[in-house]
Amino acid sequence: MLSPQYEQMLQGKSVIRMLSEFARDRGRKIGYENVFDFSLGNPSVPVPDSFTESMIRLLQEKQPMELHGYSPSLGIYSVRKAVAASLSKRFAIPYVAEDIFMTSAAAGAIAHALRAVTVPGEEVLTFAPYFPEYGPYVAGTGDVLKVVPADTETFQINFKAFEEMLTHKVAAILINSPNNPTGIVYSEETLQKLAAICREKEETYGHTIFIISDEPYREIVFDGRKAPLIGNYYEHSIMCYSFSKSLSIPGERIGYLAVNPACKDAEKIVNMCGQISRGTGHNCPPSIIQLAMAENLDTTADISVYETNRNLLYDALIDLGFTVVKPGGTFYIFPKALEEDAVAFCQKAKNYDLILVPADSFGCPGYFRMAYCIDTEKVQRAIPVLRRFVETEYPDRNAK
Amino acid sequence: MLSPQYEQMLQGKSVIRMLSEFARDRGRKIGYENVFDFSLGNPSVPVPDSFTESMIRLLQEKQPMELHGYSPSLGIYSVRKAVAASLSKRFAIPYVAEDIFMTSAAAGAIAHALRAVTVPGEEVLTFAPYFPEYGPYVAGTGDVLKVVPADTETFQINFKAFEEMLTHKVAAILINSPNNPTGIVYSEETLQKLAAICREKEETYGHTIFIISDEPYREIVFDGRKAPLIGNYYEHSIMCYSFSKSLSIPGERIGYLAVNPACKDAEKIVNMCGQISRGTGHNCPPSIIQLAMAENLDTTADISVYETNRNLLYDALIDLGFTVVKPGGTFYIFPKALEEDAVAFCQKAKNYDLILVPADSFGCPGYFRMAYCIDTEKVQRAIPVLRRFVETEYPDRNAK
Repeated sequence: MLSPQYEQMLQGKSVIRMLSEFARDRGRKIGYENVFDFSLGNPSVPVPDSFTESMIRLLQEKQPMELHGYSPSLGIYSVRKAVAASLSKRFAIPYVAEDIFMTSAAAGAIAHALRAVTVPGEEVLTFAPYFPEYGPYVAGTGDVLKVVPADTETFQINFKAFEEMLTHKVAAILINSPNNPTGIVYSEETLQKLAAICREKEETYGHTIFIISDEPYREIVFDGRKAPLIGNYYEHSIMCYSFSKSLSIPGERIGYLAVNPACKDAEKIVNMCGQISRGTGHNCPPSIIQLAMAENLDTTADISVYETNRNLLYDALIDLGFTVVKPGGTFYIFPKALEEDAVAFCQKAKNYDLILVPADSFGCPGYFRMAYCIDTEKVQRAIPVLRRFVETEYPDRNAK
Repeated sequence: MLSPQYEQMLQGKSVIRMLSEFARDRGRKIGYENVFDFSLGNPSVPVPDSFTESMIRLLQEKQPMELHGYSPSLGIYSVRKAVAASLSKRFAIPYVAEDIFMTSAAAGAIAHALRAVTVPGEEVLTFAPYFPEYGPYVAGTGDVLKVVPADTETFQINFKAFEEMLTHKVAAILINSPNNPTGIVYSEETLQKLAAICREKEETYGHTIFIISDEPYREIVFDGRKAPLIGNYYEHSIMCYSFSKSLSIPGERIGYLAVNPACKDAEKIVNMCGQISRGTGHNCPPSIIQLAMAENLDTTADISVYETNRNLLYDALIDLGFTVVKPGGTFYIFPKALEEDAVAFCQKAKNYDLILVPADSFGCPGYFRMAYCIDTEKVQRAIPVLRRFVETEYPDRNAK
């Protein structure tokens, strides 16, 4: 019979997808340039030329059976070695190839990490607001996702709520910094405190608590800063990385899982991931994409546009009277809506061809997300439209 | 805690992998040209130039954000449409894009098909000898794999045993023709009889029985024939295809799942596959590989070498007194070992640098598999070695 579990999932409609479809339909009518679509987290800058050159050179020069041959189930060894070397150099964590498992981007990495370090029925904690796909990843593993309420002052961690929810049932904690949807980067202080609490609870409960760190935005950090990494503070941590945003290749589905070398089971966990793949039928990202990526580990697309856009939008939102925490990275900003019901707020914005995403599905009602991975010129043209929208619909707001 | 399920899987060693590692180590010592490695099903002919040209043209000419952008979760629509059109034209089954779900090769297709049309705990039947990875696919779904014993006379289906095992608990049947490891192609008569029995049992039990058809060798059929397809005989069928063998690109992980358009739930099953992907974190094969593949649907690598090798090996094996059914396709042949214990037989062969795979892990003890996806020149040189091996070790066999 058809699986009731997956049949039922068909009922759920993604708000982001519906909004993006609305934007597309509207664009057909009034011209795409007139729709201010802040719905989708699709990179807006091209892949670096060096990646394209690597791909073409591999196709032209490498022996085809070797180029297109089966990858070992953990990934091509030379690629894993290159990833480990790049990480070690950049983050002062002594990764070796045996700590690295090649995946279909961060989604694949998280799905494998969860299956490796939890047992169905255990709890996984994450922090609101959170990427809605964490729901299916955790459900697919057979675990229970519990969401720690947001600290809406800072969008760092609400430690009070976290400590209450960190019971003995919790096997893993899923973090995401720089964060989708807030754009917030966890501070060193936040990560240190998180690590200290987890270490203490590991002691108390007598079992390991893994921190699974979803880091696709790690390279997109503003103001000349770097994102602090949990791996520098907590040994039972698993890094889940994707090249989707940093190299602007989301469709090519390439990333990795890196188990902290300080974790005594690091190599075992990586080998277990190879076994997990057998059951999901995933069996490694494509060989050519692995090889081309490995030649471009220390480069990114020209991501400076995201900082320019962040500055423009943040200043405009503050100027218009929004409550908003300044993003430290990513290409998202997360203001408080001008009425309690963010869904109604975003619905009204549609009348101005402003496509904003209400944050209910991110576990943080009353807020909305703007993805500013679009041309700066369009951000600039959107600002007067945003002004017209809020001045017309919310004349009594507390404008500066 | 670490998942005991996947930790335990680490204990199992793949016989094929161990043999292939032995072959590699031996090659380092005595030269690769002197090791007759029949262990691995890796294509031995290069990808067609047209595929390489498609890849390079896409990289050079397509707008990079479009080329490398997110694929919809079911696959790029134009690609699904092209796959459906090619299938319709070639096999007279009226597929449309909505019947097609793009996957990471056949492994991904089978894993999705099983999750879509079974409920954990139900039984899945397959036929010995079978591809050992069916075990993890079915276990990963939460189903129970039952193996119908082989008809060793023909390696078509043992219908007597099948009918006994086709109880009301069976939700799906996993078939593989042309077959790995036997090289046998199911006849029209076999498929018609299989369809008739399943249809009758669907009636009796009052529930659907899906036939999931693993078809990576569909294009590799000899003697100018074509492989009959279950889709032409049975409406509740799901085709799982891979381009690994036909285009010689196993490392690029590209294939599709095609639900028979005669199945009333075809489109729903495809949409459910999109939901299944969310839980496994798979989310579609890479965009560029999808697009390049879609331009090369009706071509194959130069697979004629496999037929040449089949002829050479079959004649030699018969000449040496082996019992063997002549393969109709693939690049495998499946003779009966010259002693009851095929493991012992293959162990002795290693002393002659002949790497043969005992069929115990395929569910058919007493037989062995030879993968002849190697250069014809090497097959020719292997024959006198094979002769020396059997004449020395089995002088009393019934040689012609």
